[in-house]
Formats: sequence, C-alpha cells, structure tokens
Amino acid sequence: METIEFDKLKEDISNLSDIGKSADRGIYRMSFTKADLRAREWLLSRYQDAGLESSVDGAGNIIGKLKGKDDSKSWIIGSHIDTVPAGGHLDGSLGVLTGLEVLRTLKKKEFIPNHSLEVISFTDEEGRFGGLFGSEAFAGELTPDRIHNAKDLSGMSIVDAMKDAGLDASKALDARRNPSTIAGYLELHIEQGPILDSLQIPIGIVEQITGLFKWQVRLTGLANHAGTTPMTMRKDAFQGLAEFSLEIPRILEENGKENSVATIGRVSLFPGSANTVPGRVEFSLDVRDTDESILEELSNAFRKAISAIARRRGLMFEFDILSQVKPANSNLKILEAIQNSCDKQNYKYHKMHSGAAHDAQIMARITDMGMIFVPSKNGRSHSPAEWTAWEDIHIGANVLLNTILELTK
Amino acid sequence: METIEFDKLKEDISNLSDIGKSADRGIYRMSFTKADLRAREWLLSRYQDAGLESSVDGAGNIIGKLKGKDDSKSWIIGSHIDTVPAGGHLDGSLGVLTGLEVLRTLKKKEFIPNHSLEVISFTDEEGRFGGLFGSEAFAGELTPDRIHNAKDLSGMSIVDAMKDAGLDASKALDARRNPSTIAGYLELHIEQGPILDSLQIPIGIVEQITGLFKWQVRLTGLANHAGTTPMTMRKDAFQGLAEFSLEIPRILEENGKENSVATIGRVSLFPGSANTVPGRVEFSLDVRDTDESILEELSNAFRKAISAIARRRGLMFEFDILSQVKPANSNLKILEAIQNSCDKQNYKYHKMHSGAAHDAQIMARITDMGMIFVPSKNGRSHSPAEWTAWEDIHIGANVLLNTILELTK
Repeated sequence: METIEFDKLKEDISNLSDIGKSADRGIYRMSFTKADLRAREWLLSRYQDAGLESSVDGAGNIIGKLKGKDDSKSWIIGSHIDTVPAGGHLDGSLGVLTGLEVLRTLKKKEFIPNHSLEVISFTDEEGRFGGLFGSEAFAGELTPDRIHNAKDLSGMSIVDAMKDAGLDASKALDARRNPSTIAGYLELHIEQGPILDSLQIPIGIVEQITGLFKWQVRLTGLANHAGTTPMTMRKDAFQGLAEFSLEIPRILEENGKENSVATIGRVSLFPGSANTVPGRVEFSLDVRDTDESILEELSNAFRKAISAIARRRGLMFEFDILSQVKPANSNLKILEAIQNSCDKQNYKYHKMHSGAAHDAQIMARITDMGMIFVPSKNGRSHSPAEWTAWEDIHIGANVLLNTILELTK
Repeated sequence: METIEFDKLKEDISNLSDIGKSADRGIYRMSFTKADLRAREWLLSRYQDAGLESSVDGAGNIIGKLKGKDDSKSWIIGSHIDTVPAGGHLDGSLGVLTGLEVLRTLKKKEFIPNHSLEVISFTDEEGRFGGLFGSEAFAGELTPDRIHNAKDLSGMSIVDAMKDAGLDASKALDARRNPSTIAGYLELHIEQGPILDSLQIPIGIVEQITGLFKWQVRLTGLANHAGTTPMTMRKDAFQGLAEFSLEIPRILEENGKENSVATIGRVSLFPGSANTVPGRVEFSLDVRDTDESILEELSNAFRKAISAIARRRGLMFEFDILSQVKPANSNLKILEAIQNSCDKQNYKYHKMHSGAAHDAQIMARITDMGMIFVPSKNGRSHSPAEWTAWEDIHIGANVLLNTILELTK
C-alpha cells in the first residue's frame, strides 16, 4: 500500500486556483481565455518538474507520461483544468492534479508500471465552445464540421481562439488515440452533488454516468394587455409552462426511477413586460437517468404532457433537441480495483451514479472506464462555494494511487 | 345632432401613423424621440390649420383651444400621441385626432361653446420615462424629484431628452392647471381589449378605470447542479413560482370580482442555465380591479399565498412595490351625456370598465372625467396588429362631438 505526498498536492491545488481568480473569489478560467493559457503553461511546467514526458496534442489536451515496461498501451488518468465562469477551486482541476500527484509519487519511488501511465487535462470540458472538446477529439468523435461550428456565447469560434493560442484547430482531428493503445481510463472528480456529504462517506464509486436529453421548448399563445384582457379570454403561454412545471414530479414518479431528475433552468417570456400577458415562453428542459430505455420513456411522457397542456390551453407547442447523451457504464474490473483500494486502506465508500457529464463518459465509448468521487461540501459546485475537506482529497488521491497500482500490476 | 367630417379625420390618422413607422410596420414614436418631435411639429401645424389657438406648456403638452363665450373654464379632450415601441396606428393618437376633429368641426361651423374647448396631447403617457408625465404635470402631481429621476431604459433622463427638444424640464412644474379653470375632461380611446369586438358594439362607456398594484417578487432557494441534485434535495425557486402561478385563478375567484385580473408578465431565473436548478427567480405580478377594497384584499391574499408556498418549499420571499394606482370613477353627468349622445344617434353602447391606465385616470383626481371606448379588433393593442374599423372610429368621433355639445350647451 502506497501513499501520495499530500503537501505537494495541496500546494498544486492552491497555486492553480490562483490562476483566473477574481475579486468575487470565483475562478474564470474558461477554455482558451488568458487565464486558461497561463494555467496550461503552469501545468506543463509541473509535469516537467515531476520528470514526466510532457506533450500537447492537436486538440490542446495536455499530457504527462510515465513510461511503463510495455509502452504499447497506457492507463490514462484524466479530467480538465478549465472552469465555468465563477467556478470553484476543485472540479476538474482536482482530477488532473491528483493524477499528476500519483505519477509524481511513482516516479519518485522509481516505480516502473507494467503499462505506461498518462495524466491528461482535456480541452474545454466545461463548454465555452460546447464542451467535452478534448475528450471527444481523443476518442475520435470530432468531425471538421463540429470543429468549424464550435463558438462561444459571444460568437468567437474555437478556431480563432486556438489560433490566438498558437494552435491549429484542424489538428484536433489528429488527437484521436487508437483504442488498442489504451488499457483503461480513470477519473477522480468532486461529486458535485450532496449525497456523499450527507452520508459522511469520503469515497463514491461511480457505477454509471447518467445519460440526458436537453430540449428547448416553445409554447406560443397570444400576447395581450394585462389590464384589458379578462382572465377567461387569455392564451397565457407562461401559465402553460407553470402547469407543466408542476407535473414534473408526477411524470418522474410514473415513468422514471429514483435516479431520474428533470430541471427547468432557463425561462424567457415574450414580450416580457409586466403589463403584457406573455404570448410566448421559451424554456429549457434537462432530463437525466442512468438507463437509456427510461430516458426514452421519459421523453415520450414529457412530450405527451406538454402537448396535452398546450392543446387544452390553445397554445402551440414546439421543441428542439439541444443535446442527447447516452448513459455510460463503468467497467466492473475497475470498480473492483477501486473497491479493493478502499478496503485495503479502510476507507468507507458508497456505490453511486454520476448525475453530471464527465470526460469519462466520452472515454467509455473507446475503453474501460471507472470514476472515483470525493464529497462536495453541501453539494455545491460550479461556484466559489465549492469545496471538499483536505482530508477527503487526501483519501481520494490515495485511493486513486492504489487503484492504478492494482490495475497495472 | 352634428357630425364630424370623416375624410379629414381619416387623413390625419393616416398621416400621423406614417411618422415613426418602421419596416416591421410597427410605430416607434416614444416620447421625445426624433419621430415624436416630428409628430409634435405636425400636430401643432394641424391645430393652426384648424384655426385653433395653439401652445405648448412646460411639460411639453400640446394644446389647441377653441375659445368659448366664457373663457374662465375649459372642457378638455385629451390623450397622447407618443407610442410604445412597435406600437399601432391608433392608441392615444385616436383620442387626440378625434378631439382635434371635433374642435375643427365646431370652428368651421362658427359654433361658439359656452365654455372654451381644448384638445391636449399629453407628454409620455406610454412610459419611456415612467409614463403619464404630461397629465401628472397638468394635474399638479409632479415634484422636482420625480422630474429629476425620470429616466428611460438606456439611462437617458427626461431632463436631457427635453433639453435636446429645446424644452426645460423644470418648467414642467409650471404646467399645473388650476382645477377651478377646468369644466371637465373627456377622452376617447381604443378599448385595448376584446370585449366590444366580441360583442360587436361600437361604443364602450367607461364607468371606472381600474386601479392596480405591481410587485417585483423574489423567491430565493439554492442553485445546484441539475444532474447531481436529487429531486428531493432541491430548493428550486422556479417550482415555487410555478405553484404560485397556478393558484392565481383560485385567489382571484376567492377574493376578487369578475373584473379582477392578475398577470405574471416578466420572469427571470438565476443563474438561468439549462443545467442548473434555479436558485432564484424574480417576477412581476400585476393585479387590477376597479374597487380599492378588493385590491386591498387581493394584495393580502397574494402575499399569503406566496408566503405559504415559500415556507413549504424552503424559499425566501421578498417583494418590492413597483407601482400602486387607485381606481378612478367617471362622473355620472358625463356618462349620461355620452349615453344620450349614443341614443340620439342610434348607436349601441356597452357600459364597462377600463383595465388599462389612461391620462383620464390622472385627470379624474382634479376634475370630472368620462371616457369613450371604440372596439379593438381581436383585442389587440400596443402592436402593429392594433386596429379599429373606420366605421367604428367614425361613430366614436360623432359620439364625442355630440357629448361635448350636450355638456357645453
């Protein structure tokens, strides 16, 4: 049983969190911003200081490698160092830095694994340009079209952003790694939810990553004067949304499982003035479950519910599919290795699913995948309030180290 | 029984609607924009062509006067020529232009009324700078503070906008008219609602103008990841709003009358991203009734309902009062004169209330007031779809003429 050197990991977390930190204590390190570019330089220098072979692939993924006895295959530990706007200290950074610490520890001990080990920070996981760009490039899922059309909210293209960073976006197609050269993929991440924190258990073993569908829905009625239109003569689009919104728990109970969640997170009313009955409402619907057939049933049930409400209220119902992602299952051998690692070190663990998408979900399409969660204080993430006790981070890094050792022995 | 000269009125309506008309056929003639300044010049020249004494008061109200035998008091016919963005052809313009046509007709017939008659176009009824500015100045309800703080959405002050138009905003305080010099106030307006159109009746006799209260409400829960936060562990602020929204009909039925209306027209979610449980929602609540005590009861009932929902869902409830306007009653003698005018000409009428605010509501604070409605096709207003059949406009103008004749005889 080995252990990592915790002071070094703490120092890395602290130093990286200073890059892009704003006055409100939130971190603004969106992909290919100036802060992200500084963080990329910093990470490369940390790889080099640790004595790892470092490189950047065509998608801008930042790779550190510890060569094994057999270099024809690598175990990969991955995550990302980009953040959402006003992000927290940990999120993907924790996965990259614990991966670095694991490789640094082994390098220091002059341990030579059977297969090579790589730590990778994937480009734009958080989605300035749509999300999961680096892992999709790595998994061979990118097309020239997707690269060409990836833009941020201001209309800036990833092509221009990468050019400014001295990178050629078309080379992202070269980042594809042949699956036969990958032994498997591991990712440590903060849970981003309240479960481990409420159970007071330091380790989550992720059995599945949730699939999802995300719709943009429009309900169209008739805009009218709020003072002169009697209640009975209105076609109020927002009232239609309110009715649907309250049916969500019923729809999940009837058609979903305990894992199922659905969220209306974005709502726009038109014309959107206080003295006008809203003639149109546009809203997002984000639905997640770990079972593909349940997602299918939920999709039907939600469509029927909105249709029926629209019909009854004289509204027009339209929707666009914004995204659709299949659930991913972890590999049983990797799950067993994580569990053994916990057992040997006497760490409590909880088997669970991930409700958030991760680079691991993309990697599962080409290789065996496993994920380790550490608790998120009060379930907070994507916020300056995001935190995980140092003790739990320490435990997570040790579990990662001993999992890799078991898998590569 | 006299009749107006309809071709002239049609021509005026058509010419004024060309000022500020955009490619989308909507009219952009918000107060003190270039289009509004051109319309003001145009209106003054129309007053002059009609042989009226014309003037502009300190608030920018545009006044045309036909002197009566006794000039110590005036009957006033008022409305406004400014529009909302993307407004329609009629709205306030119809009231000003029918008033002009009535005075033009009488002038042409060399009729000298007992009291003077004035047609007035009031400044900024629609609210680029808050609304009802001209009539409030006229009624002596303005304060230096209100003038100083009146700004449009871009932050431009009415002080600067009036300066650009060659006017001194502080002179708006001089626009106050002594109530003892006013015999009464009449306003013809489009209904802006569907009632007359659905009844196929050309004239509405307005008995009351609705009062209202308008709140900005905040419900605060906790923003969390939409994928990782189980449904049972959420404090979703939007679900609280949805629940309240569906209670509106019950609250109106229990505490209101058939006139009562309530509208949620503006909603903002925070942070407002599809994959985040909304931690905060801000929304407008606009509630109207013609009875002040019912408004009071509704205010209590709405506050209790939102409080209870917030308590049950673990949300924090706060609200600001954006505006609060008392209902106004029309004067019974004026109502009778309108009714007689309809009866003599064999026009059908419907007694009703106004759900929208009008300059008449301000004028009712200082003098006797009456309003005449004409039908709005499909109830549409504040939109290029706003229209009233020429025949109904013709009828409305004749009713206005004969009402004034009865009142001044």
